[in-house]
Amino acid sequence: MELGANILGANKRIADDNHAHLKSHGIRSFDFVGSIGSGKTLIIEKMIEALKAGGKRVGCIAGDVAGDDDYKRFVKRGAVAENVNTGKECHLDAHMVDHALEHLKLDEMDVLFIENVGNLVCPGDFPLGADKRVVVISVTEGDDMVRKHPLIFTIADLIVINKIDLAGAVDVDPQILVRDARNLNSRAPVILTDAKHGSGMDELKQALGF
Amino acid sequence: MELGANILGANKRIADDNHAHLKSHGIRSFDFVGSIGSGKTLIIEKMIEALKAGGKRVGCIAGDVAGDDDYKRFVKRGAVAENVNTGKECHLDAHMVDHALEHLKLDEMDVLFIENVGNLVCPGDFPLGADKRVVVISVTEGDDMVRKHPLIFTIADLIVINKIDLAGAVDVDPQILVRDARNLNSRAPVILTDAKHGSGMDELKQALGF
Repeated sequence: MELGANILGANKRIADDNHAHLKSHGIRSFDFVGSIGSGKTLIIEKMIEALKAGGKRVGCIAGDVAGDDDYKRFVKRGAVAENVNTGKECHLDAHMVDHALEHLKLDEMDVLFIENVGNLVCPGDFPLGADKRVVVISVTEGDDMVRKHPLIFTIADLIVINKIDLAGAVDVDPQILVRDARNLNSRAPVILTDAKHGSGMDELKQALGF
Repeated sequence: MELGANILGANKRIADDNHAHLKSHGIRSFDFVGSIGSGKTLIIEKMIEALKAGGKRVGCIAGDVAGDDDYKRFVKRGAVAENVNTGKECHLDAHMVDHALEHLKLDEMDVLFIENVGNLVCPGDFPLGADKRVVVISVTEGDDMVRKHPLIFTIADLIVINKIDLAGAVDVDPQILVRDARNLNSRAPVILTDAKHGSGMDELKQALGF
């Protein structure tokens, strides 16, 4: 479909511009995608805390269909942040991120976290220009969820399996998710986390390169 | 956007045809939408069991981006079922349902459950032709998730808040979700369930009209 190809091509060009723009300011950037309730926001909050403790200045772009709940959480943790409401769109695109970057003081930032809309399908086609794409899933989503969504895991740079403290309560073996993820993508590290209680956060920080 | 309006208009016409087609066979139909891991599949499985015990013949359409995990689960519970893989599409549309109906013996069916792709944003624009749209959420998705996704709750005919057994483990007060749902939609019943252990299943069956 030509329109689709045009839209995706335009998005890719803007994403490349975003990437060059962030690099020119020496900013390392990460784009978090995952379904609703996978734990993206809490994981980013924990990373803000850990990086701030190490002297890094952190910025965030909070993408949601509506509201500013996540934006407020990032600000409360001491990040500079920008809220992006997509209205009816099910994902951020590079153009939205470009506009958000205009409102952030890039010279006062070392790291940027972009949290996409809670959705594991649509963001797959829309790179935003970050250095790495982090896919976050939760064991509460079921042990079949990785193989049901092959695209997003294939293109992930890092895969986080969160809420492993609830694995028993939902009868899900995290190793099935690990196996399916490795089958789709042998390149991306897979990290098991329980962001709420802190386990796996050091490994994640290291995997992000800090 | 004219293309968008055309697509949505065409979808609506096919949805109306699907509805008339199902009605002509005396079939009552329900379209389940919700995010990944909200519990749609298990809830439908429990409804299949309960309705079969009451002598009803149940059919299912299982929508997923890839794979046939849910389809197999429905068949195992004794439903006749059709699997629909959407490929890269993030939702079912009325045309896909139309095709699935061609493969099901409608004269041997009293009830049809359609399970949409796990996604709480995109299915909002695409009615499928079922009598009622049931929106399923899980407390594990966080207490802010309803107000972050206003459209789908506004158009829901029935709202199910599932996995209430995990509310304590994830520090989520289900009443916040109930309140936000009622604010958006005073018409749709809101039912609290723990599908895994069975609580709320009788209320749900009643709310579906059985």
